[in-house]
Amino acid sequence: MPELRQNPITKQWVIIATERARRPHEFVQKRGDAPPLPSYSEKCPFCPGNEHLAPPESLRITRDGNWQVRVVPNKFAALSSEGKFFRKAEGLKRTVAGVGFHEVVVETPNHSATTALLTEEEVELIIRCYKERYFSLIHDPRIENVTIFKNHGSAAGTSLEHPHSQIIATPIIPPDIRNRMEEALRFYDDCGECLFCKVMEEELAEGTRIVHQTEHFVSFIPFASLTPFSMWIYPRRHMASFGEMHAEEMSDLARTLHLILAKVYHGLGNPDFNYVIRTAPSENRYCRYYHWYLSLIPRLTKTAGFELGSGMYINVTLPEANAEFLRNIELPPPASS
Amino acid sequence: MPELRQNPITKQWVIIATERARRPHEFVQKRGDAPPLPSYSEKCPFCPGNEHLAPPESLRITRDGNWQVRVVPNKFAALSSEGKFFRKAEGLKRTVAGVGFHEVVVETPNHSATTALLTEEEVELIIRCYKERYFSLIHDPRIENVTIFKNHGSAAGTSLEHPHSQIIATPIIPPDIRNRMEEALRFYDDCGECLFCKVMEEELAEGTRIVHQTEHFVSFIPFASLTPFSMWIYPRRHMASFGEMHAEEMSDLARTLHLILAKVYHGLGNPDFNYVIRTAPSENRYCRYYHWYLSLIPRLTKTAGFELGSGMYINVTLPEANAEFLRNIELPPPASS
Repeated sequence: MPELRQNPITKQWVIIATERARRPHEFVQKRGDAPPLPSYSEKCPFCPGNEHLAPPESLRITRDGNWQVRVVPNKFAALSSEGKFFRKAEGLKRTVAGVGFHEVVVETPNHSATTALLTEEEVELIIRCYKERYFSLIHDPRIENVTIFKNHGSAAGTSLEHPHSQIIATPIIPPDIRNRMEEALRFYDDCGECLFCKVMEEELAEGTRIVHQTEHFVSFIPFASLTPFSMWIYPRRHMASFGEMHAEEMSDLARTLHLILAKVYHGLGNPDFNYVIRTAPSENRYCRYYHWYLSLIPRLTKTAGFELGSGMYINVTLPEANAEFLRNIELPPPASS
Repeated sequence: MPELRQNPITKQWVIIATERARRPHEFVQKRGDAPPLPSYSEKCPFCPGNEHLAPPESLRITRDGNWQVRVVPNKFAALSSEGKFFRKAEGLKRTVAGVGFHEVVVETPNHSATTALLTEEEVELIIRCYKERYFSLIHDPRIENVTIFKNHGSAAGTSLEHPHSQIIATPIIPPDIRNRMEEALRFYDDCGECLFCKVMEEELAEGTRIVHQTEHFVSFIPFASLTPFSMWIYPRRHMASFGEMHAEEMSDLARTLHLILAKVYHGLGNPDFNYVIRTAPSENRYCRYYHWYLSLIPRLTKTAGFELGSGMYINVTLPEANAEFLRNIELPPPASS
């Protein structure tokens, strides 16, 4: 019989096809041989030499006079960095000024690179940029929350080839963060401990859904994973905010993310994916009940009417089998550079 | 400057690109000329003559000895109709037996038909089936909620050509329904009226987002529409449950849905879409604070990391402009049959 499982963080239910589950290798993407990308593209605003095609940068990390990672405002920003905050209510119509920031993290100068195949050092520079921009953005009094995310591939919502991720700073707390905060606070009130720390403790004790662990991070497929191969990367130390990581944790996160992305790339044939950092709003950054984490969502299935209508998901795979599959993926030795 | 708008039903925020909005006609789908489908397909379990390829039917509406609409259990059901309900808690792991029903409504015997181009009479038969099956399913004591939905096209999550919709009856109240119930109850406690009735009243007074209205139904694009051309169809009469419609309302809903689907088909070039009926759980079917409605979601854009990470959406169109566009779509006269 199928089994309904509940995500304790969001209270979402997922139907897990326990008996008729599809096996992990059925999700390996079969891609035709696309012609390799050039390492430089004349029209790409993210390629070195084309910096004038993007708005003036907000951050740059250089080595030997060349930039390695850049952060620039999104040319087609969803929010405007100019203008005053206001809130309007007219009957049931609630409106807030679309002030905020929408930035692009250009992850490498190399147009043909793939995030999953960057070096650990390169990934660490990207994470450093996330953190630096996060701190700059939360100091704007109009900002309540910062969302850091990556879209890889067309199913994940991007058409730009040059490896990049994005940061959106909003003047309100997004509903998905607000809901997680509320559930976590309720748990803290009931049990006196952090819900996320508890989830991690149980996952480590059981072990079947763990994909990888390091000194500072635990990567696992949630018990109630909504979609195949969705993963959580939790910091072991209780921290509400992504911005509270110390240097050693940042290096460890880079190693972890590098390894997890490579396992997904090699194990599942470079699937389209999103990842997102779910951090506490800035005003709650020291709270005891919330715990930041990274969600990685390979886009292997489509959401249909049932998901849109109920908020429930149907997962046709077993989280335990998927975790085992990824644990066993061996990575090729790093290419000598 | 862009504008953030809040959906009063779900408290979700959407960023509306008020100034740089794309115009409605930019969303008209350009499809290559696919070869027309045959009206019968040998391998299709939904075609007349192939009834043995699907499990035994639960409902059939016939005319002159031929069936016009059939309901059959889904051969690859997400839930099992056999077995006892149980609930298990083991630490934070919450599990419920995957009991329930997963049925397919075969909307027409004609393999090559398109739901949006069926006749009003045909649409009414489909709605009659929804209602009959809804009442049968809620009488099973293991069932808490029934979700009725349709997936049209691959972006909407279906690969089956033969026009069909689906019904899933679950042993729990799905989170999206629970959240709407909670918000609506809070509003009722505060204001003493139904939130949905109030939304409809304001939309009718303002008029700019109305697409169509009839004696019993109002079709409009929500003020805080999350995605381009998403629409709500609300019954004017306060009713928590879809099952409470009387015969005249059912005919009116059929006329309305028929017209709205045709406007979307002709106006936007047959886009992929989902629709879903958001009805109260059966135990709340007479409550004063909830109001059932139908959501229609054309799948014209993709959800990316920002949406997955925040629950916020970026809508690059103006709900008011989209409503005007659809109001002005003229439908071709019905083909003589």
